Amino acid sequence: MEKTKLDPWGSKEIKIDEKLIKEFGLKKFNKTDYPSNHYFFTRNIIIAHRGFEIIKECINKNKSFIQLTGIASSGPLHFGHKVDIDAYLLFRKLGAKSFFVVSDIDAYVSRPDSKVPSLEVAKENAVNIISHLLALGIPKEEIYIQSKKEPRYYEFAFEVSKKITENAFKAIYGHMNLGKISANLLQYSDILHLQLKEYFGPTPTITGIGVEQDPHARACRDLARRLPYNLKLPSFFYFLHQTGLQEGSKMSASIPNTAIFLEDSPKEIKRKINKAFSGGRESVELHRKLGGIPEKDKAYEILFYHYPNDEFIKEVYKKYKSGDMLSGELKKICIEFLTEFLINHQKEVEKNKKIAREMVFGKS
Amino acid sequence: MEKTKLDPWGSKEIKIDEKLIKEFGLKKFNKTDYPSNHYFFTRNIIIAHRGFEIIKECINKNKSFIQLTGIASSGPLHFGHKVDIDAYLLFRKLGAKSFFVVSDIDAYVSRPDSKVPSLEVAKENAVNIISHLLALGIPKEEIYIQSKKEPRYYEFAFEVSKKITENAFKAIYGHMNLGKISANLLQYSDILHLQLKEYFGPTPTITGIGVEQDPHARACRDLARRLPYNLKLPSFFYFLHQTGLQEGSKMSASIPNTAIFLEDSPKEIKRKINKAFSGGRESVELHRKLGGIPEKDKAYEILFYHYPNDEFIKEVYKKYKSGDMLSGELKKICIEFLTEFLINHQKEVEKNKKIAREMVFGKS
Repeated sequence: MEKTKLDPWGSKEIKIDEKLIKEFGLKKFNKTDYPSNHYFFTRNIIIAHRGFEIIKECINKNKSFIQLTGIASSGPLHFGHKVDIDAYLLFRKLGAKSFFVVSDIDAYVSRPDSKVPSLEVAKENAVNIISHLLALGIPKEEIYIQSKKEPRYYEFAFEVSKKITENAFKAIYGHMNLGKISANLLQYSDILHLQLKEYFGPTPTITGIGVEQDPHARACRDLARRLPYNLKLPSFFYFLHQTGLQEGSKMSASIPNTAIFLEDSPKEIKRKINKAFSGGRESVELHRKLGGIPEKDKAYEILFYHYPNDEFIKEVYKKYKSGDMLSGELKKICIEFLTEFLINHQKEVEKNKKIAREMVFGKS
Repeated sequence: MEKTKLDPWGSKEIKIDEKLIKEFGLKKFNKTDYPSNHYFFTRNIIIAHRGFEIIKECINKNKSFIQLTGIASSGPLHFGHKVDIDAYLLFRKLGAKSFFVVSDIDAYVSRPDSKVPSLEVAKENAVNIISHLLALGIPKEEIYIQSKKEPRYYEFAFEVSKKITENAFKAIYGHMNLGKISANLLQYSDILHLQLKEYFGPTPTITGIGVEQDPHARACRDLARRLPYNLKLPSFFYFLHQTGLQEGSKMSASIPNTAIFLEDSPKEIKRKINKAFSGGRESVELHRKLGGIPEKDKAYEILFYHYPNDEFIKEVYKKYKSGDMLSGELKKICIEFLTEFLINHQKEVEKNKKIAREMVFGKS
């Protein structure tokens, strides 16, 4: 029998990220730091932070703070994106003045033409993404599209370029690709512009990112120090990344079988989950004897990242680990959960398509 | 006696630029190319071009074409800038739909802090520059400020960044400075955006620049080819540069004694011209005997670049060259010309200050 500790929140991913956390000098989220008992905290999906103390104080003392999150409109949304969106909704509830940027310019300039061949495609993607955001409960007023901002926002993107040297940039990002430089300048503006006097003035901000994006977070904090606007250093929290459906894979919008998309049909869900990598044993006998490996099981991982009820997740973990629950049974739970969720969600998406199109292209 | 040919339009500068013209593969302006008998053509101040044929056709056949010229608001205007402005007014008269960009973002991001420490300073400079542009007869409607454009203009600046590789950029500009990259992206947008469907659609354009800026012009033409908008290749004409007031110097806004500024007082004009490098001889006797050297004389150069009447300039050249006219007499002509011009001009500038401020900062 494997020696994995009976810890439903444990995974190889967490170990990898803990190494990164140390390396980068991040702070781990401790139980006393949790601003709520949301499962992103209890399951350590939000695993670390930089500067969360100031946000915690805002939450506790009911002081104003800003949340800024975004998605580049480079393709359809999958369940990895849903984690970002759920975290956005979480901090909204915690009182953040919240803004969600749909980055169409960024998507076009930073992705190869094979992925985003034109701004037009990036904008069609944006329509699609916004209809999902609205369906998931983000109010229209909180969503902005990168290509439809006020001049000050763009001016600021260019302005920050004077505050970062070629050497510093190259050290952080390892390239001097002009399209990607443009994308970065826009990202700096996204994260910092809301603190300008033309918006809300200096205010603590929080943004959720993956641990591997920490150099970018540090660049933002460095820029906040260098700019002449008395900006608060932006705070960040760090997610674990949900992995792809195949063993060792990453979720990728351009490889459909690596992820469940928010627009997948019940048939596709069933096919993808049944083909997904499983932590089950070669035979029912062996499974009953040795137990499954939830830590490697993609159906379990989906529930872990998306199924809200902690008790239920613990129960599934125990049963699967002990061999009581078979891989097919676990997959069935996952398929049913996803199918029910997506059928309802997609109905809402349909209702929001028209308004999403108007937000991107204007009223016709 | 020196062997310089009796050619009032000749100068060392022209020779240097002819070498550049060959090197860069530009076309010289021939007499048959002149779209008017403006002294910029007859004196070869506009010396070369790239793609002027298409503009000439527009002028001859009364077809629509666009002129775009600009000045970075990095400091006060001197008489070198006046050449750009006069050329703008010239092509306006020739029928160009004309736009003059005052580049405040460019000025801030591409200049060192010692010169332009903040966007605020760049905008104050812009107010000053615009009041001069208005005074010189450029209509308000033709002037735009880089920081007050529509989103499409900025989006386009970022969009073009995907169409130029790091290697190409470095080969053209010799650096990867992020502020200067931003300035270049904005300049590409300035020159090309008027051809987008959101503006006038594909239309021939003309822009006047110095010969040394030709690599930038070629980059713009290359981008026009690569962008998916069927843009006409922008055309360029090339100026000779008026030199600084000291021997071998360049005009520089940051070294006041190198140039006459459009805001200089009569006293300053007199002082600067009297101190300027002269092509006169060591003594009156020697001057009468050998003649002056107009090609090296800064007072003569100012008249050459700014005094409209060709016959008068030829007369001055002959008299100075032959020794009939002394350096002091030439300087007096120059001082009187500048003083009269600037006294009138500055009155107009005063009248336009308020509207210039409103254009940059809005109505208060």
